[in-house]
Amino acid sequence: MLVIKIGGGGAIAEDGYGHFARDIAAQTEPLVVVHGGNAAFSRLSRDLGIPPRMLTSATGRITRYTDAATMDAMLMAYCGKVNKRLVATLQAEGINAVGLSAIDGRIARGHRKPVLRGNEDGKTKVLRDDHAGTLEGVDTRLIRVLLDAGYLPVLTPPALGEDGVPINVDGDKLALELAIALGADGLLFFSDTPGLLRDKTDESTLVREIDACAPEAALAAAQGRMKVKVEAALGAIDRGIGQVVFADGRIEQPIHQALRGAGTVVRRVAPSWVTT
Amino acid sequence: MLVIKIGGGGAIAEDGYGHFARDIAAQTEPLVVVHGGNAAFSRLSRDLGIPPRMLTSATGRITRYTDAATMDAMLMAYCGKVNKRLVATLQAEGINAVGLSAIDGRIARGHRKPVLRGNEDGKTKVLRDDHAGTLEGVDTRLIRVLLDAGYLPVLTPPALGEDGVPINVDGDKLALELAIALGADGLLFFSDTPGLLRDKTDESTLVREIDACAPEAALAAAQGRMKVKVEAALGAIDRGIGQVVFADGRIEQPIHQALRGAGTVVRRVAPSWVTT
Repeated sequence: MLVIKIGGGGAIAEDGYGHFARDIAAQTEPLVVVHGGNAAFSRLSRDLGIPPRMLTSATGRITRYTDAATMDAMLMAYCGKVNKRLVATLQAEGINAVGLSAIDGRIARGHRKPVLRGNEDGKTKVLRDDHAGTLEGVDTRLIRVLLDAGYLPVLTPPALGEDGVPINVDGDKLALELAIALGADGLLFFSDTPGLLRDKTDESTLVREIDACAPEAALAAAQGRMKVKVEAALGAIDRGIGQVVFADGRIEQPIHQALRGAGTVVRRVAPSWVTT
Repeated sequence: MLVIKIGGGGAIAEDGYGHFARDIAAQTEPLVVVHGGNAAFSRLSRDLGIPPRMLTSATGRITRYTDAATMDAMLMAYCGKVNKRLVATLQAEGINAVGLSAIDGRIARGHRKPVLRGNEDGKTKVLRDDHAGTLEGVDTRLIRVLLDAGYLPVLTPPALGEDGVPINVDGDKLALELAIALGADGLLFFSDTPGLLRDKTDESTLVREIDACAPEAALAAAQGRMKVKVEAALGAIDRGIGQVVFADGRIEQPIHQALRGAGTVVRRVAPSWVTT
């Protein structure tokens, strides 16, 4: 089984995901799709006059403040527009897709942290009623029911908070935890870059492969968001995923190309009994 | 089994559907929920600056023109905000709900009529690229899979067009066709009135019961939208539904009250072998 995360960048969605639908129709292995929706969300927030409020923590982590109106915009963009347009595109290719949020069937539960502290425009702020949190656990029962019945599950954040409030969780983390819980052979992350880049402004600095048996050099070279991705991929492999690929979601046959090694492949290359 | 249609009026959703969630948690019979989202859709359309365009046909039927941007707003309001907020509220009451559009799993297919003709502001108009149509058929397989696995399906328009384009179909018609296809014992329509009213401005003119064996008097008294509802209910009973109830969605225990006879009950009262 493969778990595929389709990023929410605008460049991936330019043809309405037709290239993904055609490629998914050509796959023989069971699939689960997780998607983002950030470009649609940003556009809707702008159109509704909800400016993004970003807080920077003491450790430098940037978090978007999600009040109730922002959560409504997130539900509308991710679960409404992006999820249903993607499902309709898949249906047009003959794939019997079922679009879900991680709220549905309690697929993912999160722990809400209603108070967000950090720095905004140079000032220390404490913002209350935040609808974001950390992913606490996933329940794959609904996904397995759908797969067993021949449907393609197509999933998106948000997740379900303890009190029934939808909470914003990271889509990459959701895909990763689902892949582990489903015992997936592979986890493919598609975004609007060719893979992990040593220099994010230069596509020729693509990292072709990271050996999970000897990741020290890759970790040393990685910075910021890339370091987080590499660490997450290594963690996934430790927890049983065969390979993690960071690949280009903008090209034709994105899944086919990713499985052929285009992009950054993270896997165990040295035999696991060799101590490096 | 009961099929419950929760109307999209603003008065029903004032407490975020908490009164429906509590009442659904108390039911013992299997349920399928269908909901609208008109108030949320109208509000979003207004906030996005998409004015509603209504065309009146030669026979007096008023239809909303649904271009691609309007369909996006519909997806966002119905499938995003209303569907997921309702599912989260149900989950908070311990009900394992799964929110779907009728696109998902090909639950409902529609025939798109891309050209809409009619009168707008006194002028004859021909509007192209309409994303609306008529419901052609329903497939209850996904709903049965979910019910068998213990989930509560929570459904909303739009439906799937032939070419994979989402199309706007009538939510009442969707609920009715699903109820028939599922062999439901009852079909309950909840809106922001106590039931069918002889005079829609006077709640004391509630029609308590319509005998499907002798509906002539009710049909003669009904006009406009109410006549359409009565005819639909009679058709549903002809096609095997035990009873159709038009009931108040604003009150506490709306399902319990509707099943106790509050609202307008349409059913066969005279034995079917009596010719009236």
